[in-house]
Amino acid sequence: MREGTPVTPPPGGEFRRERLIRFSDCDPAGIVFYPQYFVMFNGLVEDWVNDGLAIGYRELIVEQRIGLPTVRLEADFRAVSRMGDHVILGLKVEQLGTRSITLGLHCFDAEGETRMRMRQVLVTTSLETHRAIEIPAHLRASIERGAT
Amino acid sequence: MREGTPVTPPPGGEFRRERLIRFSDCDPAGIVFYPQYFVMFNGLVEDWVNDGLAIGYRELIVEQRIGLPTVRLEADFRAVSRMGDHVILGLKVEQLGTRSITLGLHCFDAEGETRMRMRQVLVTTSLETHRAIEIPAHLRASIERGAT
Amino acid sequence: MREGTPVTPPPGGEFRRERLIRFSDCDPAGIVFYPQYFVMFNGLVEDWVNDGLAIGYRELIVEQRIGLPTVRLEADFRAVSRMGDHVILGLKVEQLGTRSITLGLHCFDAEGETRMRMRQVLVTTSLETHRAIEIPAHLRASIERGAT
Amino acid sequence: MREGTPVTPPPGGEFRRERLIRFSDCDPAGIVFYPQYFVMFNGLVEDWVNDGLAIGYRELIVEQRIGLPTVRLEADFRAVSRMGDHVILGLKVEQLGTRSITLGLHCFDAEGETRMRMRQVLVTTSLETHRAIEIPAHLRASIERGAT
Repeated sequence: MREGTPVTPPPGGEFRRERLIRFSDCDPAGIVFYPQYFVMFNGLVEDWVNDGLAIGYRELIVEQRIGLPTVRLEADFRAVSRMGDHVILGLKVEQLGTRSITLGLHCFDAEGETRMRMRQVLVTTSLETHRAIEIPAHLRASIERGAT
Repeated sequence: MREGTPVTPPPGGEFRRERLIRFSDCDPAGIVFYPQYFVMFNGLVEDWVNDGLAIGYRELIVEQRIGLPTVRLEADFRAVSRMGDHVILGLKVEQLGTRSITLGLHCFDAEGETRMRMRQVLVTTSLETHRAIEIPAHLRASIERGAT
Repeated sequence: MREGTPVTPPPGGEFRRERLIRFSDCDPAGIVFYPQYFVMFNGLVEDWVNDGLAIGYRELIVEQRIGLPTVRLEADFRAVSRMGDHVILGLKVEQLGTRSITLGLHCFDAEGETRMRMRQVLVTTSLETHRAIEIPAHLRASIERGAT
Repeated sequence: MREGTPVTPPPGGEFRRERLIRFSDCDPAGIVFYPQYFVMFNGLVEDWVNDGLAIGYRELIVEQRIGLPTVRLEADFRAVSRMGDHVILGLKVEQLGTRSITLGLHCFDAEGETRMRMRQVLVTTSLETHRAIEIPAHLRASIERGAT
């Protein structure tokens, strides 16, 4: 599989992308440096907003000045990922609040074994004030359309 | 305060270091890119092993081939940190298992306001097998000595 | 174009990949943080070794214990890249020495405008000693086959 | 020496800071991942603007909206740096143009052996337009005062 290739989603609709574990993702122990999982998932959220929701991520951040900071996350690291591994990253919307979006994210290998799993709560903010705002209507509509 | 300056710990013994929020820590929204908090805390754990426990981190990883991977973490992001902020990072051992160490970590400002807080469970592993091993006696002894 | 999509090379054989400029590549000025260009090019060299030379990069580093550290580079930054830009990264072998490989690398946009350009000299080293060694025969053969 | 400790400059005035090579700076080969040198030097420039020139870096970037992007660099990597090494980073102004500042930067160990050395040309830009502007008078005055 090629990096960035969309992966056929399971019924129920999970947004998926393949990702090659690169030299620059790994630490002196030869495995993914754990903060790098969050960088990879940030990229997945970016792809989801761009391709899954068909809202430009740049458009959202730069033009509309809406931020998507993380307010809470819980992560479990189950198995190590090594340089050269081809992993799959999956994203599912678990809950949609007034100002928050709860995502379920996981990283697994071709055999379906989970490497890392996390729940992440994002809030929509104004990038002028860094204060939480209601999820903008167009973003909510795209998410509700089940657009994963 | 100068970066890296040890900060007087509160009674009960928390290991603390000051950290300047740098340009390279921040994202296009002008605030700390959240995965960077984990990089900062990884540096704090490194300082704690070096200075708090008086065990060399390099010695542990490279010579003794003992890894300290994260198996679980829970994090709350309370307030944004901006480039140029001087924050304080604190570490406390919350629990010491047979093969795991639970740390309470937080990042706060000079007024004591919490920016980010997390609980992180590390396990000791053999870097040959990436399997969990019992916490080595010298590491356990240093931690129990309350060496924060 | 999709990220990672191979791009039709010009006559003369340049190895090319497309790359989306991501949120995590950018700095508080809203443009690519310049060290991140080197991370991107490191990924391109990785893709070139994997796909262009058909030698596994992981195989080379982890199994054969051969490193490819940089000994010299010269870089010119011509135009800024912004989050959401789709850029093309190109690689060409400029010179093949006994123990060194000189690469010409550039990053340009869809209109062909150069964003950044660099010449990088890599040497092959033993990862046991970090000393330079002769370019291994199989690596040299792949490069000479013009396998860009 | 403690990280961040100012190091006594040689006659002629070089701005210096000590830096611990951290786990997060290193790659699977166990040595500094070379783009990380540029992140370290970016931090040194930040410290120089803050402490050497007594102009706040945040002030410059965020309040005055003046950027300091790199337009050219040449770097030589002479010896590897490993996790746990204490290195010294040095900065010297080599040339001051109308809109550009040429810096000589190097990283060396306690014995004075050079690990990496680079020449970097920065330009002052407006962060509104990303176009080069003349070096602001207060910045030029600070630099000319030999404020290293």
